[in-house]
Amino acid sequence: MSARPPEYSLGIDFGTESARAVLVRLGDGAEIATSVHPYAHGVMDQVLPYTGEHLPLDTALHDADDYLEALTATITSVVTRSGVPPESIVGLGIDSTACTLVFTDADLAPLSRVDRFKSRHLAYVRLWKHHAAQRYADRINQVARSREGLYLPSFGGSVNAEWLLPKALQTMIAAPDVYQAAERIIEAQDWIVSQLVGREVRAASVAGYKASYLQERGGYPPADFLDEVEPGFSSVLTKVGEEFLAPGERAGTLTPAWAERLGLTATTAVAVGNTDAHVSVLGCGVVRPGTMVAVMGTSVCNLLVTEDRHEPHGIQGVVRDGIIPGMWGYEAGQAGVGDTFGWFAKHLAGADIADRALISGRSIFDVIESDAAELTPGECGLLVLDWLSGNRSILVDSKLSGAIVGLTLATRSHHIYRALIEAAGFGQRIILEAFEAAGIEVDRLVVCGGLPHKSPLLMQTMADILNRPIEVSSSTNTPAVGAALHGALAADALDSFEAGARIAPTHASTYVPSPDRHVVYNDVFALYRELHDDFGVTNTAPMYRLRDLRDQAQARRPDSRAFRRKADHAQNH
Amino acid sequence: MSARPPEYSLGIDFGTESARAVLVRLGDGAEIATSVHPYAHGVMDQVLPYTGEHLPLDTALHDADDYLEALTATITSVVTRSGVPPESIVGLGIDSTACTLVFTDADLAPLSRVDRFKSRHLAYVRLWKHHAAQRYADRINQVARSREGLYLPSFGGSVNAEWLLPKALQTMIAAPDVYQAAERIIEAQDWIVSQLVGREVRAASVAGYKASYLQERGGYPPADFLDEVEPGFSSVLTKVGEEFLAPGERAGTLTPAWAERLGLTATTAVAVGNTDAHVSVLGCGVVRPGTMVAVMGTSVCNLLVTEDRHEPHGIQGVVRDGIIPGMWGYEAGQAGVGDTFGWFAKHLAGADIADRALISGRSIFDVIESDAAELTPGECGLLVLDWLSGNRSILVDSKLSGAIVGLTLATRSHHIYRALIEAAGFGQRIILEAFEAAGIEVDRLVVCGGLPHKSPLLMQTMADILNRPIEVSSSTNTPAVGAALHGALAADALDSFEAGARIAPTHASTYVPSPDRHVVYNDVFALYRELHDDFGVTNTAPMYRLRDLRDQAQARRPDSRAFRRKADHAQNH
Repeated sequence: MSARPPEYSLGIDFGTESARAVLVRLGDGAEIATSVHPYAHGVMDQVLPYTGEHLPLDTALHDADDYLEALTATITSVVTRSGVPPESIVGLGIDSTACTLVFTDADLAPLSRVDRFKSRHLAYVRLWKHHAAQRYADRINQVARSREGLYLPSFGGSVNAEWLLPKALQTMIAAPDVYQAAERIIEAQDWIVSQLVGREVRAASVAGYKASYLQERGGYPPADFLDEVEPGFSSVLTKVGEEFLAPGERAGTLTPAWAERLGLTATTAVAVGNTDAHVSVLGCGVVRPGTMVAVMGTSVCNLLVTEDRHEPHGIQGVVRDGIIPGMWGYEAGQAGVGDTFGWFAKHLAGADIADRALISGRSIFDVIESDAAELTPGECGLLVLDWLSGNRSILVDSKLSGAIVGLTLATRSHHIYRALIEAAGFGQRIILEAFEAAGIEVDRLVVCGGLPHKSPLLMQTMADILNRPIEVSSSTNTPAVGAALHGALAADALDSFEAGARIAPTHASTYVPSPDRHVVYNDVFALYRELHDDFGVTNTAPMYRLRDLRDQAQARRPDSRAFRRKADHAQNH
Repeated sequence: MSARPPEYSLGIDFGTESARAVLVRLGDGAEIATSVHPYAHGVMDQVLPYTGEHLPLDTALHDADDYLEALTATITSVVTRSGVPPESIVGLGIDSTACTLVFTDADLAPLSRVDRFKSRHLAYVRLWKHHAAQRYADRINQVARSREGLYLPSFGGSVNAEWLLPKALQTMIAAPDVYQAAERIIEAQDWIVSQLVGREVRAASVAGYKASYLQERGGYPPADFLDEVEPGFSSVLTKVGEEFLAPGERAGTLTPAWAERLGLTATTAVAVGNTDAHVSVLGCGVVRPGTMVAVMGTSVCNLLVTEDRHEPHGIQGVVRDGIIPGMWGYEAGQAGVGDTFGWFAKHLAGADIADRALISGRSIFDVIESDAAELTPGECGLLVLDWLSGNRSILVDSKLSGAIVGLTLATRSHHIYRALIEAAGFGQRIILEAFEAAGIEVDRLVVCGGLPHKSPLLMQTMADILNRPIEVSSSTNTPAVGAALHGALAADALDSFEAGARIAPTHASTYVPSPDRHVVYNDVFALYRELHDDFGVTNTAPMYRLRDLRDQAQARRPDSRAFRRKADHAQNH
């Protein structure tokens, strides 16, 4: 027994709509208190509140100052309510969505604070799901292909429109004065951490996954490549970081001003920031090769580390020190999962299901999930390609779309829902097999996030399809817990990632595969793979063409949203 | 001006659920009175009322005596209510669904009237949609293929499970005593006509389309072929007709007993019977080559005549005198259309649509149709293969199923409904092009049935896709009107089919194609044809396999309906 008073660490997870703080007791990993605070301006994707300006299609912004307000509100809340003495809170860790970029002056003040830029939407935080830079991504990819894949192979063959370079290029071309004033372009979690410690700090992990920084190939893409994309674009290299910290390293301690504002002490160590999915790995107690973590919610993010470098086919992110220091970290995933279930329950579950939900006081989702759970493998007679948001791994193709095959007059909503669930499981199998085909062994699967708790059917179906047990994390705050453990590492209150893993939340439940169901799913999966390769690889034309025809039809409509947005866009640039 | 008093003719249409009579004034074709009477026993597909026996899966029966009751009820109703003197009603015509078979003794008394057969379900009328003879159809097709397509080429390559031979073979094997006692096996409309005129009369048309009777190849399939299918099966040739009347020919006049029972006179001429779709051609005023008639409801039946014989690819029915005497009649169609729209509105239109329907006092169907009508071609971004009941023309494959391609999170119910409508139009284009590819010109399209009045969007979409005007018949009783005109021909009150056509209902409305929409639909149709040929011809395995997996899964369930039915079936034979 130790006479030392217990130590604590704070983790704050910056999501799309809100921030969530959790206070973790380091002796046993207990979650002492949590607090959630929504961003004052939310996601700005329709109108810029400052001017009332209608935003162009696919724009998604944050106000950086909302982060600081949410940070203060959640931390003061958990500290006050927990009754823990501030001096016992030794560490603080931050995670956020990525690539979410703050455009600042040389002193890291967001340009959106500057009067002359307040009315310019490209001066605000560009959220991960800001997809308005697609054409700039296309341009970068085109030049990269002409150079025989200069730096792209490690990223699944193409730069994603969500990443730093396309977002920076959009700013340079569409708002050159904003671009010029933006002396720093920095990820949200790096910006928050830099505020707290009073100096610019950047995470190696985020630069690797989102800023096309390839440590093993000399860093960022070369200046002449960038200037070929757009003359002068190599200037971006002066705005992004050159020095990086590995996950769990100490960024510094709280400045006296922030310590006072948060009700903490200036000795509290702050860890370098990281993305939400990546801190979830330690948050699930995973630190070694061989265990895949799946963060399951709106989308699914699969994470894995290895000691040696591999290049699994169709896996976009392969970064050294990306997740666990000293190891290669891999990021894969499915673009749409929970959102697709929600879409189906909301828009396509028949009125009979809605009636039964109303009568029994359950949600439509609950009714359809329990109906679907009554079915056995193969019984729905359907096969779904669940690419309603495109395919992330292993096809890396946002222009694909969803398909349902096998409909008859006997098909009901719960048959389709069941097939959607099965498709999510088949998608996981495709990803797993891509890792295994690259020689990476996966002997354990751990899942966290909201979806595992919401859909036991999904968990059981995944176990049956993969023929592996699925361990579900007991925490519903996995990213924030992971961030807190990173904070404790930065404070030297934990001496290793392994020590953090030992106190991470345990696995609440394990779904055990049924060999009988696995045998039937093998047959269905063979069909899935056939359609997957057909629509996704061999013959992508039908899905591409349908999308083009839809976009053309919408553009022809004088009353269409796209048309209106286009007109707005023309006015605003 | 003629001094002759006006003459009238009665038409009675025997549908699946009820019979409908119409009294037509021959001077101008006016519909004077109509009456509908449901069958007392309805469709017996769950239980045999006489015993309470649970019926085997896919069984569908009628009680023949229900026809006579409905015949009497509807005719006495229209005659009484019209006030027309019975001696002015010179003709009577009958149509019904086909192949719908009555099993009778040598005097045409249905076996279901005989005490020892009342408890045997195979002694009752086998309805067109009785699909329990599928495996007997498979056996016939297998032997036919081994004889290098002995008599099958004219029927699209295979015998349909709905036709006479499979239904007779099922009886011979599953209920040999019923088969032996059934000295006559006769189509429902032939049986009703034979009752009315007091002698056995058979229609050439129905024998050609449904009883594998090929006039130009010597009639029925040869005895040795039938005995190869099943030893002794050539006995069926003694039970079916050998002499046939062409459409509109006189079967006889009413027997005195029937004249009295119906309140008519014994001079009333009765026409040979015909199928519902085929009498609709005259009912639409069509008698010449070049005009295609589409009877649109649950399914779509396409009818066309030519002077010379052609063999369009994938068109199952090609029969001389089949529709209009002296001409080759073609029957093609789509297995599921109206039923698919109904299925979608009932089971997959989201709760939001149901709510709006409730609030506005409209049907779900109306709300979704008007939402879908707001979209422009290509805008739904979806492509549907509407084979939810399999494909009749031109793939002749009941094992195919439906598919939807192009789904995104922005897809709503009305997008899918619009794609279903478009798929019906594309299916019509595939059929039309098959006729044209065989050198048959089609210069006019006339539609009748319930669906054209229910879905103006379907009519406009068809016109746009086909780039042809669509004329909609004004009558909602087209088959019964057509049957009445056949009755008038039998009575010599009309001297030709052309004379009948002149007084048939005119076309209420014409949908005119939009060239702009046609251009866009050409692009979508190119994609439709690609997926049609891919899933329906080149690679049918996925849809077949999904169906097999579903059936296997259902069979494995101890609590399944299929399992229970199987057990019942085992008991009952």
